[in-house]
Amino acid sequence: MNIGIIGGGSLGLLLSSYLANNHNVTLYVRRISQLENIQANGITLQLEEEPERNFDVNVELVNHLQHHDAFFITVKQPQITDVIEQLRAVNPAGSIIFLQNGMGHIEKISTLQSPVYVGAVEHGASRISDNEVKHLGFGTIKLASFSGEIDDLIQLEKALHDDTFPFEVMHDWEVLLKSKLLINAVINPLTALFNVPNGSIVDNEYITRIAKKLTREAASVLHFSEEEAWENVKRVARNTSENTSSMRADILQNRETEIEAISGYLLGVVDEPERIPYTMFAYESILALQERGKLI
Amino acid sequence: MNIGIIGGGSLGLLLSSYLANNHNVTLYVRRISQLENIQANGITLQLEEEPERNFDVNVELVNHLQHHDAFFITVKQPQITDVIEQLRAVNPAGSIIFLQNGMGHIEKISTLQSPVYVGAVEHGASRISDNEVKHLGFGTIKLASFSGEIDDLIQLEKALHDDTFPFEVMHDWEVLLKSKLLINAVINPLTALFNVPNGSIVDNEYITRIAKKLTREAASVLHFSEEEAWENVKRVARNTSENTSSMRADILQNRETEIEAISGYLLGVVDEPERIPYTMFAYESILALQERGKLI
Repeated sequence: MNIGIIGGGSLGLLLSSYLANNHNVTLYVRRISQLENIQANGITLQLEEEPERNFDVNVELVNHLQHHDAFFITVKQPQITDVIEQLRAVNPAGSIIFLQNGMGHIEKISTLQSPVYVGAVEHGASRISDNEVKHLGFGTIKLASFSGEIDDLIQLEKALHDDTFPFEVMHDWEVLLKSKLLINAVINPLTALFNVPNGSIVDNEYITRIAKKLTREAASVLHFSEEEAWENVKRVARNTSENTSSMRADILQNRETEIEAISGYLLGVVDEPERIPYTMFAYESILALQERGKLI
Repeated sequence: MNIGIIGGGSLGLLLSSYLANNHNVTLYVRRISQLENIQANGITLQLEEEPERNFDVNVELVNHLQHHDAFFITVKQPQITDVIEQLRAVNPAGSIIFLQNGMGHIEKISTLQSPVYVGAVEHGASRISDNEVKHLGFGTIKLASFSGEIDDLIQLEKALHDDTFPFEVMHDWEVLLKSKLLINAVINPLTALFNVPNGSIVDNEYITRIAKKLTREAASVLHFSEEEAWENVKRVARNTSENTSSMRADILQNRETEIEAISGYLLGVVDEPERIPYTMFAYESILALQERGKLI
C-alpha cells in the first residue's frame, strides 16, 4: 500500500519504520530540520534485545500533503486541530486513521469527508532524536470504524497486519477509545505528577490508592465495570512497568500535555465535577505542572 | 535565663543563635558529629543583607538532659515521641515549650508533669550545615499555655522577647495551633508535591485552585471562616514567597515529613474522610513521594 503518516514524534517514527517493510511510506513532518535529517539518514529503529535497524522512507513537510491509500495521523491532541484543517483543505483520497489518546479529536474528525477510522496504540515507544525511535513495549494497534465501512476496515487490517507489528479490528470505536481513555486517565497524570515509571501505579502502595480512586471515578463516568477497569489499568501498568508515559515525558520536556483530551473529557461529560474530585485534582495538578514549566 | 533547646535542625540552630545574645543556652543534639562540629566552630547565623554572625553555645547529647529554666522542643513530629519519653524519664525542672507544626504532639504532651506551653513559629530558616543556619523570613514566635499558668507565660515572654527576635503571648493554644495547622495543610503538601517555593501557592493559578479547595476543607473541619483562612494562607505564601517549605525540604532530602500531624490530623477528626477529598489526595500524594524516596 501507499501510506502517509502525519507526525514525526515517537509513534510516527515507529509506524514509519515497521510499515516500511511492506509498504511505500511517506512521513509528513513539521520542521525542515527533521525532514533533512531523515532524508540524509533514514529512520533508525532501536530494539530492546536486537541490533538497531535503519529504514529509508519518503519524507515531506505536512503542508505538502499528497494522496495515499491510507493516512495515519499520529500527532498529539494539542496539534490535531491544525492537521484536520489541512486534511479538510486538501481533501486527499484515502482512508484516514486517527491514533490519538483521549476523546478530544472526535468532534473534529466528524467533519471529514474521507472514511475515518480510529485506533488505540498499545506499543511503548520513545523518540531518541529526530530520526531515532526506541521500541520499548511490544503491543498491537486496535482499529475501529468511525465513519468508514467495516468491510473496508477488515481489508485495511489484512494489508497492514504483520506478525512483527500486529493490527486488530474492533467493532465499537467508542468502547475502544473510552477503554484506552480510562487507562490514560489513571496512568498518565499520576506518572507525570509523581515523576515515576508506569510500574509505580502498582508498586507504590500510595500511588495505587490514588489510582484506584481515579479508576472508580472514570469507570462511573464512562459506565464501565470498576473491577474490570482496575484489572485493565493494573495489566497495562505491569506490562509497561519500565516505560515513561507520554504525559510524564511531556512534563519532563516542558511540552503541552494531552490532559484536556483525557481527564478534561471526563470532567466535561460528568454532570457535576464535584462527583469526581480525584480526577479534578489530577487535572488541575497537570495544569499546575505545565504552568510551572513555563517559568523554566 | 538558663535555656535548653532540644533539636539541632534549622529551628534549633536559629533559636540557639538568637537566644544566645541574652541567655545561657545549651543545645541538645542527637549525633556526636554535630556536637563536635558545634563545640569546635560554634553556630553561624547567615542573614539576608547583613554579615554572618557566630555564636558560642553549650552543646550536649539529647540523652544527657539537664535542668533549665525553660526548654524549647524543636524536633519534628516524627521524633517527638522519643523526646517526650526522655523528658518524662528525666522530669527536669523548668517550663517546656513545644514548637511543632501540626497537632500530632498534643496527646503526648498532656502526660508531662512540667508546665507545658506550645508555640507557632513564623520565621523561615534553612539549615545549611550541621552548624550553619540561614534566617530567610523574619517573623514572631507566638506562645500559648497548654498546662502552665498564663502569668508564668507572660513572665517567660518578657524574659525571651527581644526586638530582633520577638515573642508574643496568645490566649488560646488550640486556636493558635489550629490556625498554623490550616496554613500548613495547604502550603506544605502543595509546595512539596509540585516542588515549588511557597509563592507558587498564589502565583501559579492552578496551584491556587487546589489551595483554595484545601483551605475550604480544612476550614470546615476546624470550624474556621473559609474567607479568613484563605486570606491567612495567601498572606503567609506571599510573605515567604521565596522560601522552601519544611515539607518540600523533607521530600527533596528523602526525610520523613510531618504529613501525619498535619493533613493526617484533619483526616482523623473529620467524620467521613470522603468529605475532604482534596486533603485525602494531598495526604496520599505526600506518602507516595516518601515511598518513592525510599527507592532512591
